[in-house]
Formats: sequence, structure tokens, C-alpha cells
Amino acid sequence: MIRILGIDPGLHITGWGVIDFDGFRLKHIAHGTIVSKTSEDISDRLANIFKKLSDIIEEQTPDEVSIEKVFVNINPESSLKLGMARGVALCVPSVMGLKVYEYTPNKIKKTVVGSGHATKDQISIMVQKLLHNCGSVKLDAADALAIAICHAHHRNILKYSA
Amino acid sequence: MIRILGIDPGLHITGWGVIDFDGFRLKHIAHGTIVSKTSEDISDRLANIFKKLSDIIEEQTPDEVSIEKVFVNINPESSLKLGMARGVALCVPSVMGLKVYEYTPNKIKKTVVGSGHATKDQISIMVQKLLHNCGSVKLDAADALAIAICHAHHRNILKYSA
Repeated sequence: MIRILGIDPGLHITGWGVIDFDGFRLKHIAHGTIVSKTSEDISDRLANIFKKLSDIIEEQTPDEVSIEKVFVNINPESSLKLGMARGVALCVPSVMGLKVYEYTPNKIKKTVVGSGHATKDQISIMVQKLLHNCGSVKLDAADALAIAICHAHHRNILKYSA
Repeated sequence: MIRILGIDPGLHITGWGVIDFDGFRLKHIAHGTIVSKTSEDISDRLANIFKKLSDIIEEQTPDEVSIEKVFVNINPESSLKLGMARGVALCVPSVMGLKVYEYTPNKIKKTVVGSGHATKDQISIMVQKLLHNCGSVKLDAADALAIAICHAHHRNILKYSA
């Protein structure tokens, strides 16, 4: 049994989702979003993401963490903002001794929905089908759960091909 | 007396410098660089920056922190990388309860050298003139000390105009 935390980082909203995987079955454990106030200093917003993610890792005790590999935005301003949130999200698990795995958006969509061009709504519907009893899931948290499911799938392939 | 930590963040090299300021005189306390190995995972490189900056804050006990306000690079890939290092550098002091002040590169150069278009070498020379007994300073650490000096200057103006 392995517990996986998926993270979908963003300066305004960071989605997170935790699942258990026994090699065959997926089980929903928890999910949520970390929202930061645009009125606050950027350093305080990033510190808030750091603290909340640290708390989630302490409470949920994942074994491994997966995160979306970001492609650069055409807009350098957006790339810089996304980079800051992503930098914090990548460093928290590593500071706490956990290994971080990265997957491209295309691979996540293909693994969960079957198509690399799936919409956010399609991802959300598939996540709720794959994870029974997870209740209603907001789009950002659904993305995070999809990232966790993607890692469950690919770490299993890695295991059996090793 | 106020102790200021200046940070010049970068994914490969993060410069840092600490000065004391009594309202009139600047005093050099310490400086250095945090270098990360390109062979390591990005999450481990960012965690290394987080841990080293936390150690520096614990050891040097600054009262305030200043950091360069980054302008977006024309290249979104570089913006994303710089954003990640900057995100970590901004969150560490805030996680540890310190206030972070941001200054544009232009303001830093103008304050320290007198010209907004000063070169890195000119900054290094002026930093070594302003801070007696600081010894030889590498360019990245000189930039960090310049950021600290800039904050010393402007916080003083803020104080007397308040």
C-alpha cells in the first residue's frame, strides 16, 4: 500500500489530493485547496502555501508526492508567478524528506481520461468515477487528484518493469 | 541598530549578505553564496536553498530582509526557473516571521552606485568601498550586500519622513 499526495500549484489557488493505492485499487483519502489572498504580500502568500502544504504532509503522511511539470507560458509575467508557487510546492516535500515525481499535463490527461487534450471538466468527471465516495471535487483539487492517480499508474508500471 | 539580510536568488547561485546599520554607519557582518548542483532533482535543489537560507537566518539573526524585485525575462523558460528560486527565497523569511522588502534592480543600482545602469563590477567595487573590512566579495554576494545597503538607505528615509 502506498499513499500519494498530488499537488497542482498556483499562486492564487493550490489544489491538493491524497489517495491510497494497493497496486490494483485506488482509494480516495482527502483533497482540498489552499487559497491565498491577493491583498497580502507575495512573501506572505508563498509562506502560507509552504505552511499549509507542510501541515497537509504531516496530517496525511503521504509516502510519495507527484506534481505537474509546468510548461512555460507565453507570458513571462505569468511564468514568473507560476514559477514562484511551483518553487515552494516542489521544495516542501523535499525539505520533509519525500521524493517528488513530475508528470507533464499531457501524460496526466492521457493516463486519467485517455486523451492528452481532455478538458478540466472531463478530468473532474473521470476522477470522481475512479475514486468512489470522494464526493464533489472542485476543479483545482480534481487536477491534484488526477496527478496523484497518474503517479499511482506509472509507479506501478515502473515497479513491474524493474 | 538594525540587522539586514539581502538576498539575490537564483536556481544555480543564490547570493546573500548581512549588514548592521545604526542609522548612520553601515557595518559588514557576513556574506556568501548557496550553490546548487545541476545534476540534482529540481525539488532537492530548491529544498537546499530553503534549508541553507533558514540556517543563515537562524545564525545571523537579521531583523529585516530585502530582496531584488525581479523583472520578467524575455525568455519564459528562464522566468519560470528564476521564479522557482525566488518563490523559495521569498517564503523562507516570512515562514520565520520576518518582513520582506522588495527593491527594483534600478533602485538598488541607483542607491549604491548612483546610476541605474551600473555594471555588476561597479556594484562590487562600491559595496567594498561602503563596507570596510568585508574582504573580497564574489559578484553574487556583492549584489546581495547591495540589496541590503539599498534597504538600509530607504528604510532610514521612510523612518525620518514618517
